[in-house]
Amino acid sequence: RIDGARLVSRLTALSMIGATPEGGCRRLALTDEDKQGRDWLVGQMQALGLEVKIDAIGNIVGILKGQQEGPAVIMGSHIDTVGTGGRFDGALGVIAGVEVLAALRDAGLTPKRDMAVIAFTNEEGARFHPDMLGSYVWAGGMSVAAAHAETDSEGVGLGAELRRIGYEGQEAPGFLEAHAYLEMHIEQGPVLESEGGGLGAVTGIQGICWLELTLKGRPSHAGTTPMAYRKDPGLAAARINIFANELTKTIPGQLANSGVIRVQPGNVNVVPETVVMSLDLRNPLDAPLAEAEAALRKFCAELAERDGIAISFRDLARFPATPFTEELIASVEQSAAEFGLPIRRMISGAGHDAQMMSRLCPTAMVFIPSIGGLSHNPAEFSTDDDMVAGANVLLSAAWRAANA
Amino acid sequence: RIDGARLVSRLTALSMIGATPEGGCRRLALTDEDKQGRDWLVGQMQALGLEVKIDAIGNIVGILKGQQEGPAVIMGSHIDTVGTGGRFDGALGVIAGVEVLAALRDAGLTPKRDMAVIAFTNEEGARFHPDMLGSYVWAGGMSVAAAHAETDSEGVGLGAELRRIGYEGQEAPGFLEAHAYLEMHIEQGPVLESEGGGLGAVTGIQGICWLELTLKGRPSHAGTTPMAYRKDPGLAAARINIFANELTKTIPGQLANSGVIRVQPGNVNVVPETVVMSLDLRNPLDAPLAEAEAALRKFCAELAERDGIAISFRDLARFPATPFTEELIASVEQSAAEFGLPIRRMISGAGHDAQMMSRLCPTAMVFIPSIGGLSHNPAEFSTDDDMVAGANVLLSAAWRAANA
Ligand SMILES: NC(=O)NCCC(=O)O
Ligand SMILES: NC(=O)NCCC(=O)O
Repeated sequence: RIDGARLVSRLTALSMIGATPEGGCRRLALTDEDKQGRDWLVGQMQALGLEVKIDAIGNIVGILKGQQEGPAVIMGSHIDTVGTGGRFDGALGVIAGVEVLAALRDAGLTPKRDMAVIAFTNEEGARFHPDMLGSYVWAGGMSVAAAHAETDSEGVGLGAELRRIGYEGQEAPGFLEAHAYLEMHIEQGPVLESEGGGLGAVTGIQGICWLELTLKGRPSHAGTTPMAYRKDPGLAAARINIFANELTKTIPGQLANSGVIRVQPGNVNVVPETVVMSLDLRNPLDAPLAEAEAALRKFCAELAERDGIAISFRDLARFPATPFTEELIASVEQSAAEFGLPIRRMISGAGHDAQMMSRLCPTAMVFIPSIGGLSHNPAEFSTDDDMVAGANVLLSAAWRAANA
Repeated sequence: RIDGARLVSRLTALSMIGATPEGGCRRLALTDEDKQGRDWLVGQMQALGLEVKIDAIGNIVGILKGQQEGPAVIMGSHIDTVGTGGRFDGALGVIAGVEVLAALRDAGLTPKRDMAVIAFTNEEGARFHPDMLGSYVWAGGMSVAAAHAETDSEGVGLGAELRRIGYEGQEAPGFLEAHAYLEMHIEQGPVLESEGGGLGAVTGIQGICWLELTLKGRPSHAGTTPMAYRKDPGLAAARINIFANELTKTIPGQLANSGVIRVQPGNVNVVPETVVMSLDLRNPLDAPLAEAEAALRKFCAELAERDGIAISFRDLARFPATPFTEELIASVEQSAAEFGLPIRRMISGAGHDAQMMSRLCPTAMVFIPSIGGLSHNPAEFSTDDDMVAGANVLLSAAWRAANA
């Protein structure tokens, strides 16, 4: 069983690093705050006697040796946050994994297989793209070189930042073979709470399409240029944002968000020259997601033609809908039942490192409720009881996988 | 008569300072580039034997003493630019004023009244608000202390920047009493060119209303938050931008631009928390401008109510439509006629320092054509012939005023 008090106190300790006045966390990937969080985590793992290894993309791996050689049962998540992050997203999954190994050590239990916990680099995609970058590289979806070449919005390179904070490790990503992957996470949405609480056995992750659009118009004087002469990419961006929003009303299950809008030169009296905007499109099914993207591209092409705006597209992330492994989902349900905890099957709206790990091995996740459905918000909150419940289910399901 | 070659070569010299690869200028107010431009200008004035004085808001004043004491005939404009500025906007008016005084000196002529040329601080309003700030303070519309307290988008103070670049002068703004004010400027719009060229005798300046809107929503996760739960200030900003654009189709003479849009936290997968946007509303008549603003505020109030967005307003600039002085407008026309130059009366779409100076004294302006109507764009262009023609009209009208 998990030591609930210790789990909560570890989470609290980590949430001090990058704490914001609003009660949240701002620990963007590979910043000084992330480095502090990493240093703290490595210290915790070492104090537990885990073997700690860092790979070339900065993933932190803590290993508890089992009785036999061979693939490990891996738990994990991430400790980076978005700009307006909370204290639970990602951090909880890593801490819970650490607590599982601590509980086994306390109980004097050695699993048959190796067990490990991984804190993956840049899961949020808030600073570098794509999201789930560390686990994506771990799973072989992207090369280390390509990932190192990613830059943030200021043009700072990921590889350079890894070296700056001292987390470009020696190991090759994926060095630890995976027998199964289990991740505990807050739901980050309102489903579990609105169903009266209880845990979630995650059946898979919806499809994700992140696009960056660059709109080029013609800068001109806002006081002297007749409206008909203007080529305003800011207005075009507004129309695209609204169109994407309309799509969510006509395509079942469709979500859309424009979280990045940058306008150049950004002067009151200058009709903008350039707008860079992001679109985050998601759908539980790949076909309607593709339909939404196609409709959006068509709309942009017509808008570009009509308003004299040049619009170019860049993929920031593109991951298909990902079903998890039935056997492991059932194992999560069985573990909840053993503890007498209510659990329901659900799909995840957010991407998670589990989505990448499922390329390698049987994968499942356990969700706990997010109060008010809030996440990526300083007010993100989950109760201690739910955290402990979720961690116990993780412990039980991971132990089962490690001894099967 | 103006020495045309010298006028063009002085303008070219100034346009080297802050030159951009696209052929324009980026010399935002009180930056290092602006300081370089100022140093160059002061050097030119001193070389001509003008008395050079700097006031507390950084306005640079070059004075040619006349035969009698008393109010001066002032010419002027500005040397700051917007982010995507051209080589002519503002700079031409200052250089032309300098050339007028140089031509008089060359001809050995001493006017009855003092004559002066002023380069006003921060006319563009691109870095600090309001626009025309230097002449606004000069005309007593705003205190030096209030102007020094203005900050740019990074929070850097105007007073601090003035001191940093060494242009917080000793003189009180307005220290030189004005008998009349004349400003030469590029039109910055397409009217003169589309009428077949020729000069413009400016009859006044349209009303200007610059608003800054701060929209606060609720940051949330773009993958897990159902569309109906979102409070997205980015989407609200898009609707406001489009609404302002629609107003220009229903209110005669109305212009609208949203040149600033800043989104926080600016992450792909975070529904925005805050958007700061600007609106630049203009109309030749004050009543329809007020109507446009009222319609916009009503729209925002309803949107805020409906979508759960908090919207607050701040005035960045607010200047009523400003008619110039009939006698001086006629003098400008007379000067053009003396040179056999075609000229037509027109209203100015852009704000100019003349708008502020007209609070103090009889005021008029002369416009020269802008090729393609482009301004606040690196491709801004006017011909040498038009520049020389405009400067000769300025010389003639200023000389007439200085000896009346
Ligand atoms: N869990 C989480 O917030 N992941 C970030 C990627 C996403 O936006 O879904
Ligand atoms: N002339 C000029 O561009 N002035 C700046 C103020 C305005 O936007 O009209």
